Amino acid sequence: MFEGSDKYIKLVDDTLRNLITGGREEYKELADSMLYSVSAGGKRVRPMLSMAFCLLCGECPEKALYPACGVEFIHTYSLIHDDLPCMDNDDMRRGKPSNHIAFGEDTALLAGDALQSLAFEAILCNESVELIGYEAAAKCALTLAKLCGKDGMVGGQVVDLALEKTEGNVETVTLMHSLKTAALIKAACTMGCVAAGASDMQIKAAAEYAECIGLQFQIVDDILDVVSTTDVLGKPVNSDIDNNKSNMVSLLGIEKCRILAKELTDKAINALSVFEGDTKPLGDFALELLNRNK
Amino acid sequence: MFEGSDKYIKLVDDTLRNLITGGREEYKELADSMLYSVSAGGKRVRPMLSMAFCLLCGECPEKALYPACGVEFIHTYSLIHDDLPCMDNDDMRRGKPSNHIAFGEDTALLAGDALQSLAFEAILCNESVELIGYEAAAKCALTLAKLCGKDGMVGGQVVDLALEKTEGNVETVTLMHSLKTAALIKAACTMGCVAAGASDMQIKAAAEYAECIGLQFQIVDDILDVVSTTDVLGKPVNSDIDNNKSNMVSLLGIEKCRILAKELTDKAINALSVFEGDTKPLGDFALELLNRNK
Repeated sequence: MFEGSDKYIKLVDDTLRNLITGGREEYKELADSMLYSVSAGGKRVRPMLSMAFCLLCGECPEKALYPACGVEFIHTYSLIHDDLPCMDNDDMRRGKPSNHIAFGEDTALLAGDALQSLAFEAILCNESVELIGYEAAAKCALTLAKLCGKDGMVGGQVVDLALEKTEGNVETVTLMHSLKTAALIKAACTMGCVAAGASDMQIKAAAEYAECIGLQFQIVDDILDVVSTTDVLGKPVNSDIDNNKSNMVSLLGIEKCRILAKELTDKAINALSVFEGDTKPLGDFALELLNRNK
Repeated sequence: MFEGSDKYIKLVDDTLRNLITGGREEYKELADSMLYSVSAGGKRVRPMLSMAFCLLCGECPEKALYPACGVEFIHTYSLIHDDLPCMDNDDMRRGKPSNHIAFGEDTALLAGDALQSLAFEAILCNESVELIGYEAAAKCALTLAKLCGKDGMVGGQVVDLALEKTEGNVETVTLMHSLKTAALIKAACTMGCVAAGASDMQIKAAAEYAECIGLQFQIVDDILDVVSTTDVLGKPVNSDIDNNKSNMVSLLGIEKCRILAKELTDKAINALSVFEGDTKPLGDFALELLNRNK
């Protein structure tokens, strides 16, 4: 996503692991379960967005290390809880048994709970405060708390549950995508700015970019669900049709969705214009998301 | 717990409610579910401990309002998740249907998740920062994150799950009580001190008091489980014996447990000696917990 980002993925991986391990033997099962999902092959998109925006605001990516880890912990906890039998009841995740299949439902529930706490612990820990100070750390943690909670990601889950029971419209599906997906991307991007001491205008622009790529990502997902094959996608196609669930394609048709996805991509790229640094990597990332085939 | 605390219980109740409500109609079910458990008759012991320690350190109790709300949100989320079928599978809580009975398992899971986020949002919100500043707010949130997560409350849940499967010893049962119960009480007491700008010595003393009353509370619980009646206790007696689960009474006998509970109470009261303010209310509270019959 930016020059040298492989090095930073490694740094994030190591830091995530260090933050989880080191507890007592008596509850090692919990750390094992947390580590299992954190190490399950996530591409660290959100952490890299935090670091990319920190760099774009003129600071070294390391400054956003702990907020980056925080958002990844939240993302991971949400996947574990999503897969539980009372939610999506998915036995597999990224080609491996889901957390609750590997560790049992009780431990999986608790691993998700502990990953959420650890997200805030990471952002506010002494090492993080040494890098960015109390004010920026507190602002990052508040941003994440707001965007992952009732008026953010979790709120989006509840809208999603409601959509499974009633017919949706474009506004409700968009709200669901905005909360369930874009909110956490927004946390990632804006925390990177806050860690760098960015201006309100820059933070707002990062939020706009995040909202646009978040919505675009989900629309492209809905398109691929119809036009791709299970082989290419690595997951069943036509899942929403089979579940009789409204999505952007069923509501607007493929062509309108393609136009909308392109418009959102342009809007995301335009939002970057307020930054003085090199915006090409983040612009290219938006295009990659648009043009992906899985 | 301290003079005028009724007024502060009302303030906490109102603030908890205000922090939950006000979201969008589309996910109102989530707010309803959160409010249901937050308003289910909790005695606000943890919030009052935060405020009592803030007062003891020479500041007005209001300064600890948001940390107090934060710890109550964490306590409430833990009860909702505890009651879920994959955990204790309890249909009733405080004489009312459990959250998942009233709202469904999916919504209950998400209400717990959102209450955890809201705890950190509360402690770090603008109103809280206006009262205590960024540094104290960040330190309070870090304290709570550490003590409610993998090396605190959630770790204690995992030790508890392990105790259901294997025979325990005094050390493991004590560790379970220390993490599962005392950790959150410790967060409550020490956040009250941090909100008041207390010294490290005062914070350490508050942590010692909290650890002692937390362990004492659980030992008294184990004693009452054997010597009380279901009528007085309001829940089934002999629950651990019936579940063939080790507890302090089964491991040490009632007499040793009574001595231990008294020793912990004395130790809690002694810990208060470093404070210059009026320690009697907190000392009396430790005695009340010791001498309760339910």
